[in-house]
Amino acid sequence: MENFIFQNPTKLIFGRGMIEKLGGQIPQGKRIMVTFGGGSVRRNGVYDQVVASLRAAGHTFSEFWGIEANPTVETLRKAITQGKAEGTDFLLAVGGGSVIDGTKLISAGLRYEGDPWEIVLSGKAKGETVPLATVLTLPATGSEMNSGAVISRSETHEKFAFYNRNPEFSILDPEVTFSLPANQIANGLSDTFVHIMEQYMTRPGQSRVMDRWAEGLLLTLIDIAPKIKADPKNYDLMADFMLTATMGLNGFIAMGVEQDWATHQIGHELTALHGLAHGATLAIVLPALLRTLREQKGDKLVQYGERVWGVVSGSREERIDRTIECTEQFFRSLGLATRLSEAGIGKETRDEIVRRFTERGVHFGERQNVDGEMAGRILDNAM
Amino acid sequence: MENFIFQNPTKLIFGRGMIEKLGGQIPQGKRIMVTFGGGSVRRNGVYDQVVASLRAAGHTFSEFWGIEANPTVETLRKAITQGKAEGTDFLLAVGGGSVIDGTKLISAGLRYEGDPWEIVLSGKAKGETVPLATVLTLPATGSEMNSGAVISRSETHEKFAFYNRNPEFSILDPEVTFSLPANQIANGLSDTFVHIMEQYMTRPGQSRVMDRWAEGLLLTLIDIAPKIKADPKNYDLMADFMLTATMGLNGFIAMGVEQDWATHQIGHELTALHGLAHGATLAIVLPALLRTLREQKGDKLVQYGERVWGVVSGSREERIDRTIECTEQFFRSLGLATRLSEAGIGKETRDEIVRRFTERGVHFGERQNVDGEMAGRILDNAM
Repeated sequence: MENFIFQNPTKLIFGRGMIEKLGGQIPQGKRIMVTFGGGSVRRNGVYDQVVASLRAAGHTFSEFWGIEANPTVETLRKAITQGKAEGTDFLLAVGGGSVIDGTKLISAGLRYEGDPWEIVLSGKAKGETVPLATVLTLPATGSEMNSGAVISRSETHEKFAFYNRNPEFSILDPEVTFSLPANQIANGLSDTFVHIMEQYMTRPGQSRVMDRWAEGLLLTLIDIAPKIKADPKNYDLMADFMLTATMGLNGFIAMGVEQDWATHQIGHELTALHGLAHGATLAIVLPALLRTLREQKGDKLVQYGERVWGVVSGSREERIDRTIECTEQFFRSLGLATRLSEAGIGKETRDEIVRRFTERGVHFGERQNVDGEMAGRILDNAM
Repeated sequence: MENFIFQNPTKLIFGRGMIEKLGGQIPQGKRIMVTFGGGSVRRNGVYDQVVASLRAAGHTFSEFWGIEANPTVETLRKAITQGKAEGTDFLLAVGGGSVIDGTKLISAGLRYEGDPWEIVLSGKAKGETVPLATVLTLPATGSEMNSGAVISRSETHEKFAFYNRNPEFSILDPEVTFSLPANQIANGLSDTFVHIMEQYMTRPGQSRVMDRWAEGLLLTLIDIAPKIKADPKNYDLMADFMLTATMGLNGFIAMGVEQDWATHQIGHELTALHGLAHGATLAIVLPALLRTLREQKGDKLVQYGERVWGVVSGSREERIDRTIECTEQFFRSLGLATRLSEAGIGKETRDEIVRRFTERGVHFGERQNVDGEMAGRILDNAM
């Protein structure tokens, strides 16, 4: 096991009716800005619950609407301007990962003099940041219990991650997911699955505990995904989904182990260039990455096949084949495309991603061997 | 899944050589008291590492030695008197669960006017408490990443749990365990196993994630226990043990699920009356409790047997029998007794525990049905 330092101070407030506790969690006298996406929270009752709880606790607050999927710095600049004018000193994100990620940039930008895109490019918030909390409406990104955020820039078709601070608290009521459209649930399941794989699919023997916990989350997703399709308003299913998504990217399965994240890096480019939903990009890239790096990841693929998919017979190569097939089939069972051609993406995009990675001189993956050339091979395997 | 609130702010600093980071973790200018057990840390080099790191960071500190296994309020009163005289405002526990538990009572007692036993009896620290941190030397209790502590009172042969605050940080270097005697490792493995079972062995279907994570920790213990016996200075084995012990009682496997804890309650009485090591009491009580409550816990016993012990054939009753046998055999493989008679404990002790539970009017277990009478049946099944 590698040495590590772990700390995750976010308070999770989980369960039905828990939005009621919101107002009591925020210190009195704060100048709160509440941030939202496009308006679905008005239709599903979450907005009314949030406002009622804040008012009952005596808080006043302003609102910022319109943080889009794959939140853009262009939108977030407006929120920062509003927050600076209002003296905002507490942020409450009400929405999915995009609203939360965007709010992390607002938090970093409110006390920053320069342009917020500089913060994103630097990879880390500097100086004073503003505390934030969340009411989660879409299980997927894990942003409700970590410090990361991914921000896009429309004008240049770029998308990068940066780190700020953890939410002070996050309220997760599985009932708020009952009104989600099926494609958002599918993308959320895909995103969660790949988060776990990015931390797990490297090499075995680093930590028995982390392996078992990652496998436990994967087994949970594989168990619940078809059941959720059949019964998307089942509380216990959606509670397990919500808990898995949060546990999948809060550091709990990353202690003392290598991580990959090349699938995400390539996926971000597909979103930046084509606007494809994040979870949809991962469903295309991960199987192709496994096919490409099957030797490097072979030992872990065998363990994963055995423990997660029950693949226990055949030669080593057959087991690896079958395991990668099971993985691709999982994404297909969610109704997602797993090939670039299905998404109408061709060679020009492949070449542009190779060009970008090469120009940036990046080296991703647990062995730092996913550069432009390797990304090209992975994308070839995704055609 | 039941509603829950989870928060665990303790910073884990894990790995070889990490004690070096100690001094830099404590704010400057603190009046630090370092607390110790009986002196093994002088022999294994931990004391020297701690002192060197504190001095290198410019800290001064006092020392309190002699917190015993099953720490007593009689000893801790002396530490509180010393700390009050010195104006202690930061505590550093260097040792195993007993030293850490004892230090949690010192933390609660330093600003308290009355006798610290009142705090234990009340179940919870009140008013101002003093921040603490730990350097762990024995994986077992999980106290390094939770708020609980168990304190004994010699004069009355009593032992009770109370809750204070989480450590600010805990440093876990698996190498410090290399000099532990075999019986302490066995007791630590037993304690860890039963912590997990107390949170897991209730009923299935509450949370897929929590079930998988608890099972993952149990599978890890079953995998490593015989290997540790053969190779107790293997870094990766001891790292997995240390991580499992911490993850076994830090709330990470307790989200939204029922808990039992009757085994611990009965075990505490055996320690209070006979001075038996904590882990040793649990190895005797847990199999007997499972035999006694096999109907109530039957569904979960079947799941546990299948997923943890590979018991997949036979009738339901045969599977439950075999699963409980595997569990008892696990403790025996550690070299621990699993029957009261082996520990020289007989009917008088059973009767005294029944009398105490009945007099106190307690009801333990996830169904609150372990009272004096039920404890008597469990102890009969442990003869």
